[in-house]
Amino acid sequence: MRSDRLPETFLPKRIALPVFASDPLSSVAYAPDEILLTLGLAGGAVALAYSWQIALVVVAVLIIVVLSYRQNVQAYPSGGGDYEVATVNLGPKAGLTVGSALLVDYVLTVAVSVSAGVQNAGSAFTFVRGHEAVIAVLVIFGLTAINLRGVRESGIAFAIPTYLFMATVIGMALFGFYREAIGTLPLAESAPLDLAPEPGYEALSGVALVFLLLRAFSSGCAALTGVEAISNGVPAFRKPKSKNAATTLLLMGTVSITMLLSMVTLARWTNIHYAEDPATQLLRDGVPVGDDYVQDTVMGQVSKAVFSDLPAGVVLVSIVTGLILVLAANTAFNGFPVLGSILARDGFLPRQLHTRGDRLAYSNGIVILAGAAAFLVLVYDAEVTRLIQLYIVGVFVSFTLSQTGMVRHWNRHLRLERNPAMRTRMLRSRVINAVGALMSGTVLLVVLVTKFIHGAGFAIAAMAVLYVVMTRIRRHYDAVRDELAVSEGDTKHQLLPSRVHAIVLVAKIHKPTLRALAYARATRPSILEALTVDVDPDETRALQAEWDRRDLPVPLKALDSPFREITRPVVDYVKSIRSGSPRDLVVVYIPQYVVGHWWEQVLHNQSALRLRTRLLFTPGVMVSSVPWQLASSEGAEDRMDGPVAGDVRRGEG
Amino acid sequence: MRSDRLPETFLPKRIALPVFASDPLSSVAYAPDEILLTLGLAGGAVALAYSWQIALVVVAVLIIVVLSYRQNVQAYPSGGGDYEVATVNLGPKAGLTVGSALLVDYVLTVAVSVSAGVQNAGSAFTFVRGHEAVIAVLVIFGLTAINLRGVRESGIAFAIPTYLFMATVIGMALFGFYREAIGTLPLAESAPLDLAPEPGYEALSGVALVFLLLRAFSSGCAALTGVEAISNGVPAFRKPKSKNAATTLLLMGTVSITMLLSMVTLARWTNIHYAEDPATQLLRDGVPVGDDYVQDTVMGQVSKAVFSDLPAGVVLVSIVTGLILVLAANTAFNGFPVLGSILARDGFLPRQLHTRGDRLAYSNGIVILAGAAAFLVLVYDAEVTRLIQLYIVGVFVSFTLSQTGMVRHWNRHLRLERNPAMRTRMLRSRVINAVGALMSGTVLLVVLVTKFIHGAGFAIAAMAVLYVVMTRIRRHYDAVRDELAVSEGDTKHQLLPSRVHAIVLVAKIHKPTLRALAYARATRPSILEALTVDVDPDETRALQAEWDRRDLPVPLKALDSPFREITRPVVDYVKSIRSGSPRDLVVVYIPQYVVGHWWEQVLHNQSALRLRTRLLFTPGVMVSSVPWQLASSEGAEDRMDGPVAGDVRRGEG
Repeated sequence: MRSDRLPETFLPKRIALPVFASDPLSSVAYAPDEILLTLGLAGGAVALAYSWQIALVVVAVLIIVVLSYRQNVQAYPSGGGDYEVATVNLGPKAGLTVGSALLVDYVLTVAVSVSAGVQNAGSAFTFVRGHEAVIAVLVIFGLTAINLRGVRESGIAFAIPTYLFMATVIGMALFGFYREAIGTLPLAESAPLDLAPEPGYEALSGVALVFLLLRAFSSGCAALTGVEAISNGVPAFRKPKSKNAATTLLLMGTVSITMLLSMVTLARWTNIHYAEDPATQLLRDGVPVGDDYVQDTVMGQVSKAVFSDLPAGVVLVSIVTGLILVLAANTAFNGFPVLGSILARDGFLPRQLHTRGDRLAYSNGIVILAGAAAFLVLVYDAEVTRLIQLYIVGVFVSFTLSQTGMVRHWNRHLRLERNPAMRTRMLRSRVINAVGALMSGTVLLVVLVTKFIHGAGFAIAAMAVLYVVMTRIRRHYDAVRDELAVSEGDTKHQLLPSRVHAIVLVAKIHKPTLRALAYARATRPSILEALTVDVDPDETRALQAEWDRRDLPVPLKALDSPFREITRPVVDYVKSIRSGSPRDLVVVYIPQYVVGHWWEQVLHNQSALRLRTRLLFTPGVMVSSVPWQLASSEGAEDRMDGPVAGDVRRGEG
Repeated sequence: MRSDRLPETFLPKRIALPVFASDPLSSVAYAPDEILLTLGLAGGAVALAYSWQIALVVVAVLIIVVLSYRQNVQAYPSGGGDYEVATVNLGPKAGLTVGSALLVDYVLTVAVSVSAGVQNAGSAFTFVRGHEAVIAVLVIFGLTAINLRGVRESGIAFAIPTYLFMATVIGMALFGFYREAIGTLPLAESAPLDLAPEPGYEALSGVALVFLLLRAFSSGCAALTGVEAISNGVPAFRKPKSKNAATTLLLMGTVSITMLLSMVTLARWTNIHYAEDPATQLLRDGVPVGDDYVQDTVMGQVSKAVFSDLPAGVVLVSIVTGLILVLAANTAFNGFPVLGSILARDGFLPRQLHTRGDRLAYSNGIVILAGAAAFLVLVYDAEVTRLIQLYIVGVFVSFTLSQTGMVRHWNRHLRLERNPAMRTRMLRSRVINAVGALMSGTVLLVVLVTKFIHGAGFAIAAMAVLYVVMTRIRRHYDAVRDELAVSEGDTKHQLLPSRVHAIVLVAKIHKPTLRALAYARATRPSILEALTVDVDPDETRALQAEWDRRDLPVPLKALDSPFREITRPVVDYVKSIRSGSPRDLVVVYIPQYVVGHWWEQVLHNQSALRLRTRLLFTPGVMVSSVPWQLASSEGAEDRMDGPVAGDVRRGEG
């Protein structure tokens, strides 16, 4: 499936890491923010007390997920993906659930990553502020254009910004640790402010506090999205593929955890106060800072503190963060069409998303993804905090079903395996996947409970709608397949029509008409007649006269049209032929202009098109388009090939 | 042209008047307002001093226009319309100018009338206030739906509201005159207010004052739109058609003038202060009334004064005014598609706006008109005063060219006419039309000069764009016609292809494939082969095996597709056949599913469609669609006929 989306050379680990890891790594740019601001709802003290713990729990979950997916990678070296794992082990309904969930989450990956990128860019480039949604939509359109042109994502293009991001963030962390050690790390710009709790969240305790902590944890779990990408991409790795993929997963997990913990630590040391609603929650000397206060992202505030003497450092962090977030969005532009194509192959989505390998199929997927993401960005005004409420649900549905499927996978294999060493390894894998399934399921439950009313409900609703629609599409394709099937011994569909009655439609006498007449005569039909519709008696008389004068070797018949229509008299006439001789085949020849530009298409062929559509409804009728290539059509065919087809050629040739 | 748009019975004058006069009569609901508020820019004293005079000048122009068009009606009993008159007498460029101008003005008729109707409705139904634009767009969509369904506008449907409007307005005027005579006519609600001049308009004198008076006159000329409708509709009148039409014109002018003068008189007696910007211009005890003040239309304020003891009268005026304005908008829904069809017939607009009489052509025109009008309403927030700045330019371009054309018409006829009585009558007509042309030209100049920067410039720009686009379209059609023309003796286009090479495209073996094979065999081609594209080697092998097992009587060929495309290998193969035997005809048979719903169309035929489009670019290739009607397509054909076609039948049957 992915062969035309991946480089023809296999990836060494040092390239595979950046290719697959931009999505999970980039979440360090927004996950700490979400943890802090959710806790901050209950005030600065709560945020200070719990942000560390929440981050550690997220890290623990990340470790388990990484370990679990290392099992997937070993068991499905063909790069099954969660959809395949769920379908094979739990059945098509589970697979379709995973498919719906991942489609929704790909859209959210684009919306969240791009919004976060734009928001981060605002730290260094203040002109972005206030226009986030528009700029985010423009970025999405830019990504769409790049992906539609089919620029081949070379490993290097991913490697440079990803390693730059890793180096910058870890460098910033080390420099921050050094400054803290020698006592020169300044406080953040928001440190002097007080963070007041939101109304209703004052002095939380007991169940309410636990609920808030769980909610903060749910938001922090945004750090986990994209982990599954490596398990889809195993075939792209150098040999030994599974082992290299598993190692890369581990590397990615390690880097992710390092960066996440560094950011949370630095945020704490620089005493960042980060609020969901900064205008009212942040107080300066007891007074709300108001709408004029601009709250930088945590990454932005940390960079401004760490690089307090080095403004270029702040700009660098802002740029590489924006870049990696756009790369993260770009991974969805690969993943969505691939998943769409697999679902279409299995009959759950319209066939043109698959089309037996035609590259154009991906274009449809790319456009759908971009449209949906841009819609979300506009609806949620590119606010990461609101978008993140819808996020992660899909990923954890996918994690849970995939890990559960893996447990089944090992059960099945254990039933057949006799080798004790292998059995031991399988038993160990099963334990890991079972823990993964249990933990993913728990997190999913937590996410659902804590975020449902904040937005996760919409994500679930979207998945449900997709699930139902895809089920219906599959049912439709199945019904059509059954309707069209011919049993082996059945030969009645091979019966030939007894005679061929050819009709050439004529509006006036010009080259296309003469060509249609010549082509129709070349097929030597049993009966051949030219047909015109008498809408204007004068015109019809003139046509008939010219017809006779030119001595055309086919009789011209004029149909009455009391209501000055064209379509209906022709259809009625064809039907009358059919009812007179039901075993005849009627072939209608329609001259058609082939033009070079879309606006010329608007100017021609409209009646022909309408007539063609209507005639197709009549059984026993075949419609032949006799093209006439106008001069303007020359070269248009080459334009239609475009860069996409060319690219596929470059990609695999 | 109009035969299917008009009742089959011919109209007596008492029905023709309301059918054609709703547009000019309805302008009494906004023309006085525009005169008053334009004068009011210079303060209440100026408005009081000049509103009467301005109204009288407008009336004078109206009289001349009516008298002029009585000549058109006599000279073109076939209902030429300004486009025909200008084209015949001044040439196609003048005709096209009139066409562009009228198209723009039809759009403005809808926008202005509906906006004014909604604004008037606000006098009685206050919930409308603040939502004018949305409600106006909904009204436009409602009119569109009604006109698309093709409800036949019976004369009665027009007659009742139009006569009701005439009776109500004239009744209100008489009652108002009576109350004034006995001294009980109260002052208007805005009478106690002062009307302050806008900044820059204080103490105008000389040129500036004259300019403002001319501007007020220009706005007042909105009362003249729609006068030309009767001259288009002469064929619909009872005999003697021309005489009856001329009488109806006179009637319409008389009623129009009576109503206009009555409204201006009552506005003066009730001392209405009407401002362009009421919040700042209207002062209560020297203080601006502010944004809370709601300014009723002149019609609304007059009705509230006259019917001060009879609130039902106010509601009645509001309802019938809204109704007649909607009827006025509806006349554009007739006029625009008819004009579009005439322009399309002459090759200036896409042919599907004409399509040799097909009723569907009108639907396209209706949708275009509604879209453009709704766009204007939204852009100008349904504010009549701003829309009116764009209005009238087109009508006066049309008046001027049409009247000038009439002068030419009489010149031509006078050259041939010998009968002295006839000559006298023609000379008199020529004088009237010359006065009409001169006066229309002067008004056009005044309108252009006074309103250009206020919006008329946009209308001119829109006309210019339309003119250029229509010229280009005509040039394109002419070029295509020349390219396609066959000279009389030329028989080389009748040459038959030497052989027919038939290709049946096969994806899998099912009923549509077998039907395509049978149809292709029935045409007995010289060479017949089945063709599949080898995208997936396993699938292709299975297909080949089933093909052999079923013993199908046609060889199956598989094309390599290294890039897993479908379109390109087929096109390349067809081209290779053509280059091997250039005199052969290649016929490609493509099975096509016929489905009942648009969403099923999305699920099928997409590759076939793409392939078909591409093959048509290759000369010497004919594409035959072999339809397979799926069960769901049954009954869909009847649904396609819909109410429009059915209506045409009712209309003329």
